[in-house]
Amino acid sequence: MTIPKSAVTRVPGFRAVGVTCGLKQSGNPDLALILASHPCTAAAVFTTNVFKAAPVLYDLALMERTGGKLQAVLINAGNANAVTGGQGLADAEQMARWAETACNLPADSVFVMSTGVIGQKMPMDKLETGIRIASETILTEAGRYGSAVAEAIMTTDLVPKEVFVQVVVGEKRVHLGGMAKGSGMIHPNLATMLAVIVTDAAIEPAALTAALKQAVACTFNRITVDGDTSTNDTVLILASGEAGHALISDSQSPGFAPFVTALTDVCSGLAKAVVRDGEGATKLIEITIRGAASEVEAEAAAKTIATSPLMKTALFGNDPNWGRALAAIGRSGARVDPAQVSLRLGDFQLVAQGEPLPFDMIAAHHWLAETDEVKLVADLGVGQAEATVWTCDLSYKYVEINAEYHT
Amino acid sequence: MTIPKSAVTRVPGFRAVGVTCGLKQSGNPDLALILASHPCTAAAVFTTNVFKAAPVLYDLALMERTGGKLQAVLINAGNANAVTGGQGLADAEQMARWAETACNLPADSVFVMSTGVIGQKMPMDKLETGIRIASETILTEAGRYGSAVAEAIMTTDLVPKEVFVQVVVGEKRVHLGGMAKGSGMIHPNLATMLAVIVTDAAIEPAALTAALKQAVACTFNRITVDGDTSTNDTVLILASGEAGHALISDSQSPGFAPFVTALTDVCSGLAKAVVRDGEGATKLIEITIRGAASEVEAEAAAKTIATSPLMKTALFGNDPNWGRALAAIGRSGARVDPAQVSLRLGDFQLVAQGEPLPFDMIAAHHWLAETDEVKLVADLGVGQAEATVWTCDLSYKYVEINAEYHT
Repeated sequence: MTIPKSAVTRVPGFRAVGVTCGLKQSGNPDLALILASHPCTAAAVFTTNVFKAAPVLYDLALMERTGGKLQAVLINAGNANAVTGGQGLADAEQMARWAETACNLPADSVFVMSTGVIGQKMPMDKLETGIRIASETILTEAGRYGSAVAEAIMTTDLVPKEVFVQVVVGEKRVHLGGMAKGSGMIHPNLATMLAVIVTDAAIEPAALTAALKQAVACTFNRITVDGDTSTNDTVLILASGEAGHALISDSQSPGFAPFVTALTDVCSGLAKAVVRDGEGATKLIEITIRGAASEVEAEAAAKTIATSPLMKTALFGNDPNWGRALAAIGRSGARVDPAQVSLRLGDFQLVAQGEPLPFDMIAAHHWLAETDEVKLVADLGVGQAEATVWTCDLSYKYVEINAEYHT
Repeated sequence: MTIPKSAVTRVPGFRAVGVTCGLKQSGNPDLALILASHPCTAAAVFTTNVFKAAPVLYDLALMERTGGKLQAVLINAGNANAVTGGQGLADAEQMARWAETACNLPADSVFVMSTGVIGQKMPMDKLETGIRIASETILTEAGRYGSAVAEAIMTTDLVPKEVFVQVVVGEKRVHLGGMAKGSGMIHPNLATMLAVIVTDAAIEPAALTAALKQAVACTFNRITVDGDTSTNDTVLILASGEAGHALISDSQSPGFAPFVTALTDVCSGLAKAVVRDGEGATKLIEITIRGAASEVEAEAAAKTIATSPLMKTALFGNDPNWGRALAAIGRSGARVDPAQVSLRLGDFQLVAQGEPLPFDMIAAHHWLAETDEVKLVADLGVGQAEATVWTCDLSYKYVEINAEYHT
């Protein structure tokens, strides 16, 4: 779906635009620029992958230098600037410098993200031109509407992913607009889950970081398409403070809780959109583990099911194959009482007290064939902790996407 | 391939046979019996899955009770007798009793293995008849040749898997014959990797267990088809002692080293055969990690690549997609120096000192398209440890096998 205004530009004080600079062979928009009217408080979380792409290394140092003060974000799709050595790092910095100059911003005010092919040098000539065009276009109506900004960060995503949420903090309306890209690590060497969220909330850097980590922990960190992390994964949030409510200085401030709730809604919406758009996905699969000894073990069990090719192919085949879910739980490392474990798929109770129950296999198969959203709930029977993870099924299309395209 | 004599019956003192008792709808042999002329020293390793099938629970107690003395093995294919509660355990014990009676063996001399559908009661009437027929047939020529014994343990395996090795211990010829089944966790609820090895070596239970664990650690424990362990995985070895060499009493005995080497050859041959026959596999993939800080980290890195759907689909697509291998290493938890890492695929050096190297992409693609055995070697550049893991690629056929069959 495309909306008249992009989610990020629905937040007062933010302009955005997507332009074409020629990184995508398709000629589709491939360079996105988001610009705030004033310097913003910024917080970001990055990939845990040891091989961090040049822009990630640049941004890590940037956040350190600025203490979390930024005014713009530059994102390119088509080249990840990853495994590009020293030249890659210099290129990431040059991209930031060009954007800062073009937008009349001081040094160290632009955050850089890249997604695309790994191991190829950035075509800096194209980027120099593209950055100039983007910084000019963003001052026009297109910039006010955020034209093509969500499209410009897509790689093999089938749809742009945007979420807009409003929340009242201290009797003031606070706006949050976010966009994301990603559908697994993608053909032939493309990668990455990127998300940018902007808000007019007034919040201190430390509190914003705490809020982002809290929101990401149970959303972006709870999704998986194929179990692979990328070299570029990044989630960034910019807060302009223009909403005018009392400053959220820390997690004890009255505005913190409602803000985290709204931010979690944005992250959750974007995260599920990424999974729904997973490579070759035909179903969104929600896996909830209950009765675990700890939340860590609940998450481990859920993620083991969520990354099991057997479970994912079974659900693609509309097969209520609970044996595969139990086998996955059994190797997850989570403590479980085999005599107490229970399992439910949608409305079908398949296992109780560790024993298989008779159920209408045909009805379950038909239900799976018709739904595009599957809920699997397992109780490990050893504690009170629980966790939910979202993934998608594994289809012929996934194999095609990842096998048929060649580097 | 079928050989005139099965690998297990090429070992003096062992008879074996496979018969049909009706567990497989195909009518193919589905019940295997292996019988030694005298009580043997036995050692076994079992699945680490929390959900252990009834025969695994029975065998664990059996090995405890007997201290590792057995004379026969009964294996059925078509029903895993897993997640079958108390009845399943009683059924496993009844199968052993029937075999012991039919073969005139004392109680606690028969080891039981099952592979097949999870969560369905064993059709004990069929098994009672099948066990009687097997125990009669094993005394005929068929039993001397081990007729159909390797076929009888197959589920969706495409080929029987057997290995025969001879080694000289103390100037006496020692024989080792093994067979295995498994090609991942299989349609629709089938599972399991099973292996049985028999030998006429003379060796104490503790030494045999030590030898088996050593051999399995770098063979069966180093293969993966889809990352899923089953509820029934079991590797058993029986040693009759009839070779007549000086008893191998412990790992210091002169015969221990050559025996472990021979046993490792058997396990390695069977393990690779399982991977080669992996569901939908078109290639055997050998992944070696060098320069790791520890063997544990080397194995973790190798297994992360070996279980990456992206790497496996890329190789199915004959795509020299080294970016996916690096990304997998980067999330494996193994220490790695991004500036020192190197990667080789077959004869193509793709990465050195952390930087991508120019290489003939077309030649690499054509080589991959023509070979059915791919070697990937990565050096993490942080230490001296190394480990090798074997897996297969991920094809449309894998998805078909696991999605198209319904429970």
